[in-house]
Amino acid sequence: MNVNDLVKKILEGDARTLARVMSILENEDPGAEEILERLSSHIGRAYRIGITGPPGAGKSTLSGKLAEQLRADGKRVGIIAVDPTSPFSGGALLGDRIRMSHLSSDSGVFMRSMATRGSTGGLSIKAEECGDVLDAAGFDVVIFETVGVGQNELDVIQVADTVVVVLVPESGDGIQTMKAGLMEIGDIFLINKSDREGAESLKKELVQMLQMKKSGKEIPVITTIASQGVGIPEAYQAIVNHRNIIEKSGELHTRRINRFRQRIRNIVLRWFEKEFWNEHRQSWLDQHLQEIATNHISPYKIAHQLINAYRKEQK
Amino acid sequence: MNVNDLVKKILEGDARTLARVMSILENEDPGAEEILERLSSHIGRAYRIGITGPPGAGKSTLSGKLAEQLRADGKRVGIIAVDPTSPFSGGALLGDRIRMSHLSSDSGVFMRSMATRGSTGGLSIKAEECGDVLDAAGFDVVIFETVGVGQNELDVIQVADTVVVVLVPESGDGIQTMKAGLMEIGDIFLINKSDREGAESLKKELVQMLQMKKSGKEIPVITTIASQGVGIPEAYQAIVNHRNIIEKSGELHTRRINRFRQRIRNIVLRWFEKEFWNEHRQSWLDQHLQEIATNHISPYKIAHQLINAYRKEQK
Repeated sequence: MNVNDLVKKILEGDARTLARVMSILENEDPGAEEILERLSSHIGRAYRIGITGPPGAGKSTLSGKLAEQLRADGKRVGIIAVDPTSPFSGGALLGDRIRMSHLSSDSGVFMRSMATRGSTGGLSIKAEECGDVLDAAGFDVVIFETVGVGQNELDVIQVADTVVVVLVPESGDGIQTMKAGLMEIGDIFLINKSDREGAESLKKELVQMLQMKKSGKEIPVITTIASQGVGIPEAYQAIVNHRNIIEKSGELHTRRINRFRQRIRNIVLRWFEKEFWNEHRQSWLDQHLQEIATNHISPYKIAHQLINAYRKEQK
Repeated sequence: MNVNDLVKKILEGDARTLARVMSILENEDPGAEEILERLSSHIGRAYRIGITGPPGAGKSTLSGKLAEQLRADGKRVGIIAVDPTSPFSGGALLGDRIRMSHLSSDSGVFMRSMATRGSTGGLSIKAEECGDVLDAAGFDVVIFETVGVGQNELDVIQVADTVVVVLVPESGDGIQTMKAGLMEIGDIFLINKSDREGAESLKKELVQMLQMKKSGKEIPVITTIASQGVGIPEAYQAIVNHRNIIEKSGELHTRRINRFRQRIRNIVLRWFEKEFWNEHRQSWLDQHLQEIATNHISPYKIAHQLINAYRKEQK
């Protein structure tokens, strides 16, 4: 199928084509950029929800339950689950996703797993691009689900309009560290598995910490037991409320503009990495590395030699 | 003080100069590269240990206890703790570090906190550079301590000779996800807070999973209660053993060579980001972003326009 046909099929929402095109994007196969360019005028309708939190917090169960609520509301939902890859398991871990298999027979739901192991900005670019495909295909909501501590949390901001942070009662333990990363990005906090000990005290602590932010915004903290559906309608309502608020205030527009900027920066960076580290320069470095390290030559010196050579080539 | 004096004072191990130079490196102040270049011939003696794991696993207590063991062995120890920053706490979170204050009166111990919030490769470059300063100053061991899930785990590999992954019994819950990121990087696994329920079953599970790796290497799994010193001598011994093994096998050398490569790549990338995103191009993008987003122009199109303009400038 050529690009024309693929684009046409995407706009019709054909599930098999969606999966196929996402593979093209993930592998950076020929045609990837052209497809995205052709789709760009059909993008901007889907609302994008990011779900993040520590491993084991129940993120995939939650996104499954939210998808059910959205379906009950007549919305078409895409889920893009970004899983860490393991070289010895050989691919993205599907784990809990099997529990959501009843959703997979519903044509109003599209699910996709992606691996994180990639280069600079690689995850967010590709996740966002897959979101664009779903957007162009007429999905009303796209849920991005990712493990969040460290750099990933920035990635999820880069793709989502509303960020939901999922914690568990045990998270209280690591809250000192946690608050740094996750606290500042959440628009909504869920304490999942809240039948476990410590849920109420974590909630209290969280509310207090979030008040310290003094952003003027009220950030909801909701207790849930996703596996039993407890708290899910409240969580869903909180997302709807947040969407209404940021649509009215213009913040949604600002967020999307900023995302667009970051996206352009990522594309430029990815281009440069390919451009600079061509085979010639890579093999030069491989050959000289031994000698450089043994003679304790500064990495800055080598980097600048390579940069100077690159500059000369440009002329 | 000029660069000459700073370098001289570092080589003498002057603690105040160490702190000052690390600030110069962190802020990329003038002289930073020159200092590093001057130090590069004095680097390579210090052994570098990376400690990573989820928030709340007790990493800083552990590194404090390991530092005590190293001190008892007559080694000088530097600790570089990489903490996530929060905009509303206004800096790196020191948290547990206070517990280690008895170490801070010991001149054979140097401690430094660094923030993670930075650009591409920023954390690992700077943490490694601070490690270099300690190395040149004659510290025998440098401990890098960082929260690890997601991208950070790659960063810690980039700076350490031996990677210690710290888990807690509750980690079993997220082990599906966890194994992907942390499992593949650990040379040694500690199950800290092992007086809590689930320690033994996590240990069993871990041992099983690590055997699946079939790397031929035995990866120790040790239970500890760092706050009470339980398991610390065993953990210390495991690090010493790992060091001996990789020194003999040549793997240490390979690791350092690979680190050197990655470091050069990071320096090049950082150079490019500054070079490309000059004020002119940044403000152009800021001015046109609104229009670009409103007209649904593809980010690839814009990125390539900017790249073409950059290329023309080079000529």
